Amino acid sequence: MGNTSNAVGSAVTPVTVAELPGLNTLGISMARIDFAPQGINPPHTHPRATEILTVMEGRILVGFVTSNPENRLITKLLQKGDVFVFPQGLIHFQKNVGNGYAVAIAALSSQNLGVITIANAVFGSNPDIAADILAKAFQVDVNVVYQIQSKF
Amino acid sequence: MGNTSNAVGSAVTPVTVAELPGLNTLGISMARIDFAPQGINPPHTHPRATEILTVMEGRILVGFVTSNPENRLITKLLQKGDVFVFPQGLIHFQKNVGNGYAVAIAALSSQNLGVITIANAVFGSNPDIAADILAKAFQVDVNVVYQIQSKF
Amino acid sequence: MGNTSNAVGSAVTPVTVAELPGLNTLGISMARIDFAPQGINPPHTHPRATEILTVMEGRILVGFVTSNPENRLITKLLQKGDVFVFPQGLIHFQKNVGNGYAVAIAALSSQNLGVITIANAVFGSNPDIAADILAKAFQVDVNVVYQIQSKF
Amino acid sequence: MGNTSNAVGSAVTPVTVAELPGLNTLGISMARIDFAPQGINPPHTHPRATEILTVMEGRILVGFVTSNPENRLITKLLQKGDVFVFPQGLIHFQKNVGNGYAVAIAALSSQNLGVITIANAVFGSNPDIAADILAKAFQVDVNVVYQIQSKF
Amino acid sequence: MGNTSNAVGSAVTPVTVAELPGLNTLGISMARIDFAPQGINPPHTHPRATEILTVMEGRILVGFVTSNPENRLITKLLQKGDVFVFPQGLIHFQKNVGNGYAVAIAALSSQNLGVITIANAVFGSNPDIAADILAKAFQVDVNVVYQIQSKF
Amino acid sequence: MGNTSNAVGSAVTPVTVAELPGLNTLGISMARIDFAPQGINPPHTHPRATEILTVMEGRILVGFVTSNPENRLITKLLQKGDVFVFPQGLIHFQKNVGNGYAVAIAALSSQNLGVITIANAVFGSNPDIAADILAKAFQVDVNVVYQIQSKF
Repeated sequence: MGNTSNAVGSAVTPVTVAELPGLNTLGISMARIDFAPQGINPPHTHPRATEILTVMEGRILVGFVTSNPENRLITKLLQKGDVFVFPQGLIHFQKNVGNGYAVAIAALSSQNLGVITIANAVFGSNPDIAADILAKAFQVDVNVVYQIQSKF
Repeated sequence: MGNTSNAVGSAVTPVTVAELPGLNTLGISMARIDFAPQGINPPHTHPRATEILTVMEGRILVGFVTSNPENRLITKLLQKGDVFVFPQGLIHFQKNVGNGYAVAIAALSSQNLGVITIANAVFGSNPDIAADILAKAFQVDVNVVYQIQSKF
Repeated sequence: MGNTSNAVGSAVTPVTVAELPGLNTLGISMARIDFAPQGINPPHTHPRATEILTVMEGRILVGFVTSNPENRLITKLLQKGDVFVFPQGLIHFQKNVGNGYAVAIAALSSQNLGVITIANAVFGSNPDIAADILAKAFQVDVNVVYQIQSKF
Repeated sequence: MGNTSNAVGSAVTPVTVAELPGLNTLGISMARIDFAPQGINPPHTHPRATEILTVMEGRILVGFVTSNPENRLITKLLQKGDVFVFPQGLIHFQKNVGNGYAVAIAALSSQNLGVITIANAVFGSNPDIAADILAKAFQVDVNVVYQIQSKF
Repeated sequence: MGNTSNAVGSAVTPVTVAELPGLNTLGISMARIDFAPQGINPPHTHPRATEILTVMEGRILVGFVTSNPENRLITKLLQKGDVFVFPQGLIHFQKNVGNGYAVAIAALSSQNLGVITIANAVFGSNPDIAADILAKAFQVDVNVVYQIQSKF
Repeated sequence: MGNTSNAVGSAVTPVTVAELPGLNTLGISMARIDFAPQGINPPHTHPRATEILTVMEGRILVGFVTSNPENRLITKLLQKGDVFVFPQGLIHFQKNVGNGYAVAIAALSSQNLGVITIANAVFGSNPDIAADILAKAFQVDVNVVYQIQSKF
C-alpha cells in the first residue's frame, strides 16, 4: 500500500517499463492508487496513454476536461467495482469522497506513459517559467504566481 | 493575419481536418501564429501531436516542461528562420520578446491534434472543477481558486 | 464477483469495447478474474493484446509458452500485489494454488482483444475440425479426438 | 522444395527477418509450404501477422476458428490459383486433400510473425505444463495428458 | 495466367482489398506477375506498401533505386525460388531475362497498396502535366515531352 | 534563403532528423522552399510522408497525380496564405508562376521522409538503369533514353 501522508493525500505505485523492463515494446502498464480520506490525485495528463480505472475499495469522484474550445468537465462518482476511462492526453483527476481509505487500479495503454502533474509542471518547473508569462496566462497578479511557485 | 487584440496578445489560425477535410487520415496539419508585441501563446498541450515551429518574423522565446518527476523547463530564444520542436503531450508556450509583431508557422503530426490550454481547462472548465480539489492541487486558498475561475 | 461454479473453477468479468462502447479507438481494456480454490483459467491467447496481471487476493501460479521452435514454458508463483505480463498472442494460463478464493485484475492493450480458449477452439469448434486432422496434429488415435470433442 | 517426410507430411520454408535480415522494419515476410499427399500443416497461430495464402499446385483444404464465444470453424477447399486469408492470431490449418504433392505460397504481415503450433506449445512445452491443469482444461484424465505429452 | 500481349510484355493479377473485401484492415495483399520473354514490369512505386517477391518460374532481373541524394541502383538476377524485397515507396522494376515465360508472386504489406507507374503518371496523366514543367524536370526539349506524352 | 541558381530554379532547405536529431521518433519535419521566377520543384515523391504546403510569398502552381489506373492530375494555383496537401507517396510538383521570388513552407508527417526526384531516380541513378528497360517503359527510342541519361 502506498504512503498517502503527503500534501494531496494519495500515492501512486506504478508498474511501467521503468519498474518492469520486460514491458518494453508491449504497450501496456498498470498502477495502484491509494487514497487517504478526502485525498486527491491532482489534475494531470499522460502524454502517451489512455487510462482505464477500476475502483477496488471506497467511493471515488473522477473527472476529465475535454479540449478547446469546449473545456467540458465530465465527472462521475464511482463505487467499488465501477470502471472509468480517461482518454489519452486529457487533464483528469480523482478524489476519495468516502470516509475511509480508497484504492483503485489503473491500466494504461503504453509501457512509458509519462505523467504531467499540471500544478507541478506549470508552477514548479525547474527553472521556473517566467512569472509574467504565467500571470498573463492565468490572468492573475504576478504576486499570486510567485506565491503559488513558492509551494512547489 | 490573425487578430491579436485579446488578453494574451496572440492568434492561432489552424489548418486541421476541421478546416480542410481532405486532411483526414493523412496525419498532418499546420497553423499560423501571430503575436502582438509581448504577446504570448499561453501554456498548452496537444494530446495527439508533436509540433515543430519555424519563426517567420520576429524574436520568440519558446519553452516546454518535461514530465514527472523532473519537470525541467527547456527554453530557447528563436530568431527569424529558427526551428524548435515540442514533443507530443508536453506543456509548452511561446512569447514574442521583440518590439514588433511576430509570426510563426507550426506543423503538427496529426490532422486532429487537439489543444488543451492549461488555464482554460483547469480554471475555466464547464462546469468548474470543485474549488477544494484545485485548492489542494495548487496549494492555495479556495478564494484564490475562485478568483482565477472568475476570469475564465 | 464472478460465478466460479463451472468446470474450470474460474470466471472472467471483462470490460472491453463490447461492455463499454466509449473504449472504442482507445486501445485499452480490463478484466477481473475470480478463482475458486484450485480453479484454473485454462490455456488461451489474445490475438490482439498483451496482458498485464495484478494479484489482488490469493496465490496464483501463472505461465506462458514461447513460440516455435523453443516452446519454452515460463511460470511464476504470484503473491498478492505481484504483477506478471503475457505478451501478445502467446498461450498462457493461471491457477489458484491457495486454499481460498483468489482475485486478479488484468489490463489488456486493446479495446477488442479477442479470447481464444485453446481447448474450445481446437476441440469444440462449430462445426468440429475433422478428427483425422486433429489426430495427426496431436498424434493420438481418432477415438481420443472424438472423446475430447464430446466434452465441448 | 521442403522435406515432407515427417509426422504431419508438410514442410514450411520461411523467409522472415531471421533468414533475410534486410526485411527488418519492413513488416512483411513469405513462406513456401510443401505438402505430401494427405499431409497437414497442423493447427497453429501467428501472434504478430495476418497470413494470405495462394495455392500453386494441388487441392488444399484450409480452415480457421474464430474467437470466443463462437469458436466458429470456417473452411474452404482451394484449387490451384485460389487465395485465402487467415486473420492475425487465429488458429488455422491446411490439409492436402489431393493425391499428389501440393504447394502453397504464404505472405505474412510482419517480418517476425512467430509460429505457435498448438499441439507442441500445449503438450510439448519445455518443461511440461502441469498435467492437472491440462486435464482440467481439456476435460480428460491426466493419463491421456501424459500420453499426449509423451509424443512431443 | 495474365495476358502479357501488351507494350511491356507483362501482366499483374492483384489480390487486394478491391478484389477480396475480407482483406480490409488486415494489412496484406498478394499479386501474381506473368512475364513474356523479355517482358518488363516497368518502373513503379507502391505508396503504401513494401513488396517481397518470389520467383516461381524463369529468371528475372530486379532492381530498385534509393532516394536522394544517392539514387543508387540496386539490382539482382533472381533464379526460381529466389526472394527479393522492394522497400515502401521506392521506384522498382523487373525484367524477364530468360527465353521462356516467367512467373513471380509478390506479397505486399497493405490491403490497399497503390501502384504508380512512373511513365504513365508523369507523361500520361489526365490532363497532361504542363510540358514546360516536364521539359525542365527531365532537361529535354518540349518536343521530346510532347512525343512521349503522345504514347500514353 | 536557399540558392535558386540551378537548372530548376528552386532550393529546398529541409529540417528533418538529419539536420535536427531531436526529431527522432517524433514523426514530423519541415522544409522551406525558395523559387526563382518561373522556378520549379520538379516531380518527386516522399515514400514515408504526407506533405502540407503553405505559401508565404508569391503565386505557386501545385499539382499531384493519383495512382493507377486513373493517373488523374490535380492542380491548384495558390496565393500567399493558401494551403495544399500532397498525400503520402504520390508524385507532385510546384512551379512559381509569378514574376518575383516565391517562398513556401512545407510540413511533413515523418522525421525521415525521403525524397525521390523522379527524373534523377529514373534517368540519373548510379549505375544507370539499362536503357532497353527505360525505352520500353517510356516507349521511346533508346537514343532518347541515352540523351536524357546524359543530363543527370
